[in-house]
Amino acid sequence: MNDCYFQDRIIEFALGLDWSGVPDDVRKVFRLSLLDWCAVGLAGVNEPVSAAVRDMVLAEGGKCEAAVFGIDAALPARAAALVNGAISHALDYDDTHFLHIGHPSVTIFPAALAVAQLVGATGAEFLTAALAGYEASVRIGHWLGRAHYEAGFHMTATAGCFGATIAAVRLLGADAAQMRAALGLASTRASGLKAQFGSMGKPYNAGMAASAGVEAALLAVAGVTSDVCGLRSFAAGHAGEMDAGALEGLGQVFVSANISHKFHACCHGTHAALEALAKLEVDVGEVTGVRIAVHPRWLKVCNLAKPVTGLEAKFSYRMCFAFALAGLETGALATFTDENCADPRLQALRDRVVVQGDATLADGAARVVASCHGDMVRQAEFNLDQALPLPQRRDRVLAKATVLIGEERTRQIWARIESLETTNSLPDFLSAQ
Amino acid sequence: MNDCYFQDRIIEFALGLDWSGVPDDVRKVFRLSLLDWCAVGLAGVNEPVSAAVRDMVLAEGGKCEAAVFGIDAALPARAAALVNGAISHALDYDDTHFLHIGHPSVTIFPAALAVAQLVGATGAEFLTAALAGYEASVRIGHWLGRAHYEAGFHMTATAGCFGATIAAVRLLGADAAQMRAALGLASTRASGLKAQFGSMGKPYNAGMAASAGVEAALLAVAGVTSDVCGLRSFAAGHAGEMDAGALEGLGQVFVSANISHKFHACCHGTHAALEALAKLEVDVGEVTGVRIAVHPRWLKVCNLAKPVTGLEAKFSYRMCFAFALAGLETGALATFTDENCADPRLQALRDRVVVQGDATLADGAARVVASCHGDMVRQAEFNLDQALPLPQRRDRVLAKATVLIGEERTRQIWARIESLETTNSLPDFLSAQ
Repeated sequence: MNDCYFQDRIIEFALGLDWSGVPDDVRKVFRLSLLDWCAVGLAGVNEPVSAAVRDMVLAEGGKCEAAVFGIDAALPARAAALVNGAISHALDYDDTHFLHIGHPSVTIFPAALAVAQLVGATGAEFLTAALAGYEASVRIGHWLGRAHYEAGFHMTATAGCFGATIAAVRLLGADAAQMRAALGLASTRASGLKAQFGSMGKPYNAGMAASAGVEAALLAVAGVTSDVCGLRSFAAGHAGEMDAGALEGLGQVFVSANISHKFHACCHGTHAALEALAKLEVDVGEVTGVRIAVHPRWLKVCNLAKPVTGLEAKFSYRMCFAFALAGLETGALATFTDENCADPRLQALRDRVVVQGDATLADGAARVVASCHGDMVRQAEFNLDQALPLPQRRDRVLAKATVLIGEERTRQIWARIESLETTNSLPDFLSAQ
Repeated sequence: MNDCYFQDRIIEFALGLDWSGVPDDVRKVFRLSLLDWCAVGLAGVNEPVSAAVRDMVLAEGGKCEAAVFGIDAALPARAAALVNGAISHALDYDDTHFLHIGHPSVTIFPAALAVAQLVGATGAEFLTAALAGYEASVRIGHWLGRAHYEAGFHMTATAGCFGATIAAVRLLGADAAQMRAALGLASTRASGLKAQFGSMGKPYNAGMAASAGVEAALLAVAGVTSDVCGLRSFAAGHAGEMDAGALEGLGQVFVSANISHKFHACCHGTHAALEALAKLEVDVGEVTGVRIAVHPRWLKVCNLAKPVTGLEAKFSYRMCFAFALAGLETGALATFTDENCADPRLQALRDRVVVQGDATLADGAARVVASCHGDMVRQAEFNLDQALPLPQRRDRVLAKATVLIGEERTRQIWARIESLETTNSLPDFLSAQ
């Protein structure tokens, strides 16, 4: 085993991936991830960070190479990747992979789409390159490990930059040496700190990773030389664990199939509990009290007792439950408002909810116990680590998209994604209409 | 002392700096640094990395905001900073500050010049902003410390990104809160690995730092929020020492006055010995042998005994001495050729040179002993840490520029720099003619 073994295997996988060899279920989940990314991006176009980043690159102008969320103009590929990464992470409503504590879609799709449009790739070429980058980013994140995350690095941006690079390089038709040079350039460009959480720097991290990936790929293909073992150099300087177990099943097992799509427009820590509540199918009229149990670590993350703003409500088990019990759509951004937090009826529901820590529960699990009139008690558990059955996942991603961008636009985009494998030129996913 | 004390002091210094309060000697050295940067940039325009980065951004096109080394076209400010940073570090012939083991000019000037042109700054505004960024970058590098460098980070790019940000923010007329946001964005974008040394990734590091600084400044001024204590977050994640001693004399002592300009087109490790040799003023005809003593660490860096290529000659005390003894200009790039390495007369001179380690010598020092006919022995020492007297520094920077870009172009650029303080619109420094 030489020093660059991990990187060599990742390159071999990424260049060798053939769409015809990808299992059908993996393709199906991947298409849903693309739809999910389009929906959260289109829903995020008017966020302040989206406007600021977009305005900066629009003022620069340049060649019309790649599409940008929510506007008719196209921009140079590096710029489009920067904007689309930031926009699609602006709502923090995009997908998450728990194997590496990161959000793969918001770096991979912006880079892959921008370069695919630059080179005029077919739908299948785009899908294959994006999947290669997606799979690689999660495995690279897993290889960097929790120590990397705990040291302060935002895995979405760091692992994401390498995945974005790989997707971009593949679309440029590069060979292994060029892929190596591109990963070398990515290793010196990759960055992103968790200290940005809670500020617009978080979505910016996604954009800069996507753009850096495009840049590294373009320069490597143009002959810029670099460190030949960039992934190792990066890991060495950034508290990477370099756990070779991250290669397990590479080429056979597709980790993207276990992606977790977000179905509630609030902190991911509340999701298992909301899913457990949904399983109970209780009627708001009959509930006298609700107890939520989650791993104690979550009590510091999303357990605001009496949130006042819509943003605070996203970090409040009690308020999220009040919304859900009252029949409000927790998948809709519009549910999380200051007004709803101030509604006496919703506050009364909120005050029937008690949240407790239980260290025996897994990180992704929650237990909900509802007391109802007549001393009836109903209980359900849910664990986010268990992937949803495909038909159910499909229905829910489509329903989420519908809530975010409307039925007509969802239908249009989904039809384009469903026929992407056989499309010679990439259709429009990103314009608002 | 609050947690952000270092950053607060740096911001206060950078926003408060007034050109009228800058000592005359500091201004003079700073103008020489600008000339030196122009000269190495213009001399580096045809390097492969220069062409690759320039071609990438030229293909993107965009608004004519800022000048680029060696071409008539202007480019968006972010792109110009990227290109000019990479080009001016391509030859590795730019200035060095030993207080922080980095090259300040190649990140600060590209960022400051691009933004100054973008906003139509006066000469004095450009100089003040660039000096603020320059001073800050060296002090930030000092604060990050040797541990940061030893952990694998390329100080030129990391500390340089913060300095570039500061210069850019100042030119955009921002306040302290915007400067804080910009440093927050820079903290999540700053990167650069020493593992790139020996590849084109090294000059690329300088370009990306300059461009990241411009980007962070533009976004912060557009309202993008970020970590309010970015410098500390960056240091915490990147083995920063955070030595508060780096603030010593801030505002009174200008560290830029101790910049080390390179006067030989070869490894910095050979420079003290070449300077000592020059002091001896020996005639090649009379020398029978030369002994060089340097700190033993340099023997692993630049002591190739019989170099074959021009590049190898740059890392060979013996060959550099052969060139100098024979009267070749060691400040000229053209001296370091394969042909010269193969010249029997030069090889004979080379073989009269012996290199030894001496642990009692300082890092920046060298001792040279020449044996001459008639048992005459002459000896000299030189230490790079001792700054040259200003008139001598001026003559040598001008001579270096003349060797690199010719007398006429040097004269033109120097005249423009000398009148910069009173110029309302920035003159052209970067075009080849």
